[in-house]
Amino acid sequence: MPHIKLPEGLPGIRGAMAFRPETAKPLNELAEILLHEPNSLPAGERELIATYVSYLNDCYFCQTAHGAIAAAHLNDDEELVKRVKADFQHADISAKLKALLVIASKVQQDGKHVTVDDVEKARAQGATDVEIHDTVLIAAAFCMYNRYVDGLATWQPREEELYRQRGKQTAREGYVAVSKEYIQQYAPAADNA
Amino acid sequence: MPHIKLPEGLPGIRGAMAFRPETAKPLNELAEILLHEPNSLPAGERELIATYVSYLNDCYFCQTAHGAIAAAHLNDDEELVKRVKADFQHADISAKLKALLVIASKVQQDGKHVTVDDVEKARAQGATDVEIHDTVLIAAAFCMYNRYVDGLATWQPREEELYRQRGKQTAREGYVAVSKEYIQQYAPAADNA
Repeated sequence: MPHIKLPEGLPGIRGAMAFRPETAKPLNELAEILLHEPNSLPAGERELIATYVSYLNDCYFCQTAHGAIAAAHLNDDEELVKRVKADFQHADISAKLKALLVIASKVQQDGKHVTVDDVEKARAQGATDVEIHDTVLIAAAFCMYNRYVDGLATWQPREEELYRQRGKQTAREGYVAVSKEYIQQYAPAADNA
Repeated sequence: MPHIKLPEGLPGIRGAMAFRPETAKPLNELAEILLHEPNSLPAGERELIATYVSYLNDCYFCQTAHGAIAAAHLNDDEELVKRVKADFQHADISAKLKALLVIASKVQQDGKHVTVDDVEKARAQGATDVEIHDTVLIAAAFCMYNRYVDGLATWQPREEELYRQRGKQTAREGYVAVSKEYIQQYAPAADNA
């Protein structure tokens, strides 16, 4: 049961966002820019970074939700998502993404763990400064989203099909559009402070 | 030296925000709502939560910057900020804030570490659901800001007076207003991707 009285029927971060629409707005806008808006790094690769960090933080909701969004961007290749989580160095992804995942995994522990060598290796594979910046911020942001979702003990249903359907919709429409419906629907509950 | 080419002369998160104004916008809006906008929890207490989490994450820039903002809100009581970092259970703060700092310190490790007992203790001291929510999200958000600042190896000058002056301004004007000047000033540099 959640630690505070969240609107019922909304899994994971959605219940928390409906409870506090004021903070939901910048949280969704940040996700939109980092993961959905056009970028030299494809959305599917950015979602893999988010999924991997959420896996390292052992956040069931986030790794399943973003794993499903990643798969939706990547021709429904759910096996690839699983392989990235289990052992990304041997997954069928680019050398550049592998180098960025190394940086993301360091950030997940502590930003100070990222070395000059880690960054040089990513750059040698073609990573730009914006891509390195965004990788650091995606990894850092999921250290927030994961703790937000788990720290409130949100409801995290285990039916994978639910995440799969939602993942396709978010991959198509983005975070800001998809969040509007449930935040508007439930917003009055946030007055029960 | 920063891992990527950040605008020079802007310490900590400010260099990163000037480099990528798109993500700076929601990052500043989130800080504004969580730390600056009116709330039943005073701004000084919310800044103490941010400072304490940044201290636990060993982020020099964030703990010094937010420690200075906290002091500016709390009659310039820099000693109180130091005592909270060193041993908050014996600092001259309310029992409610102590209970919220326990929750924040659990979130800093892993959201799943927050227990029903931690939340009940905060509630017994008068904490509302919104205050518990905001404590969890402030702690989670600083696990992001800290990793962002350290993960890019930003410039973190050691002159405390610099943080003190800036802290007074941010306490007075808020995050969105203060950030506008340096983001607008340096924004063209972000095109050098």
